[in-house]
Amino acid sequence: MANEVVLLDTWFSMFGMRVKIALAEKSVKYECKEENLRNKSPLLLEMNPIHKKIPVLIHNGKSICESAIIVQYIDEVWNDKASFMPSDPYERAQARFWFDYIDKKVYATWRTMWLSEEEHEERKKELISIFKTLEEILGDKTFYGGATFGFLDIGLIPFYSWFYTFETYGNFKFEVECPKLMAWVKRCMEKESVSKTLPDEKKVYDYVVSMKKALGFD
Amino acid sequence: MANEVVLLDTWFSMFGMRVKIALAEKSVKYECKEENLRNKSPLLLEMNPIHKKIPVLIHNGKSICESAIIVQYIDEVWNDKASFMPSDPYERAQARFWFDYIDKKVYATWRTMWLSEEEHEERKKELISIFKTLEEILGDKTFYGGATFGFLDIGLIPFYSWFYTFETYGNFKFEVECPKLMAWVKRCMEKESVSKTLPDEKKVYDYVVSMKKALGFD
Repeated sequence: MANEVVLLDTWFSMFGMRVKIALAEKSVKYECKEENLRNKSPLLLEMNPIHKKIPVLIHNGKSICESAIIVQYIDEVWNDKASFMPSDPYERAQARFWFDYIDKKVYATWRTMWLSEEEHEERKKELISIFKTLEEILGDKTFYGGATFGFLDIGLIPFYSWFYTFETYGNFKFEVECPKLMAWVKRCMEKESVSKTLPDEKKVYDYVVSMKKALGFD
Repeated sequence: MANEVVLLDTWFSMFGMRVKIALAEKSVKYECKEENLRNKSPLLLEMNPIHKKIPVLIHNGKSICESAIIVQYIDEVWNDKASFMPSDPYERAQARFWFDYIDKKVYATWRTMWLSEEEHEERKKELISIFKTLEEILGDKTFYGGATFGFLDIGLIPFYSWFYTFETYGNFKFEVECPKLMAWVKRCMEKESVSKTLPDEKKVYDYVVSMKKALGFD
């Protein structure tokens, strides 16, 4: 079967980065089409008519949406390489639970901290507490997947490219708040699939500053 | 291995019903502990410290949370019976996508329709449109799983026990708006795993009326 793989993405999206890392881990070649979220392409609207969001993976003309679902799809289709998923069903359920926890908590909390003056302090504390929780469940493991980099590692590591932005807007330091998590970040960054995917933290920050202005804040 | 299975639930929860149907489909014996959501048990808070929500499945002392994750866990652990999941990775991704769509859309839309006077009409239209979308993707299939009752069927059918409530508060009829979906409901209700799990629609309605009063509305 021909494998035509196209990714609709925007460079600063943590959710798109998950897909890029998963594809790199499986050595899948693909074409990345950069979307402008203020002027979405007809292809994006056709391929994700429900949510109209990136990332979308288009595999042989069929679209798969939602990063957690895409990463599992990649794992299941390119199954000649090691699976991202733990082999034990309970561990698999745990990995899915924490991936979902990240999806429910991190971006929404950050967004309110970023945009709301009233809720800034409260949300900042919440954001730090979310990452402390994630640090706690890592424990003394090398990766969330244990000895190997897996599903939950892929779910979380893209946020590292936004850490400088979180720190600058929140006036805190991950190195101080979550030193063990930062040690995990360093281990992840030794992997090419991660280091070659994540954009420069300053570039993300500059983009976020410009976006806030464009939204009419500051 | 001993299989001690306990379910923390409340009888009117669509999310809990998903788990009950999945357990029934796999012929798993379990103890159901009814929770009072206004006075959550120490066991619930211990077993789901993050979200503090039902349903929680406790299998040999270990907890699994979030209904989509629990249903997949049940499918993977009790794998001597047919899988809920489609065998094709793309179909599996689609089933996960629509299950997630239900989770993101139905309850939140209903809740606003139910509680907000200003947004009532708009949310009612949205709720109907969500179910029309779900009817459309069913197409002419017997079940969402194709010939067999599967993961997405389990995700959606519990909402049927709330249809009378949705209809009464929304002043519309599913039979008129979504006749093909209602034919699917009838097929699902022929399954004992479903008919023995879903509570009486009038009992749900009475409960919802009393809850609205308790919340200080009406």
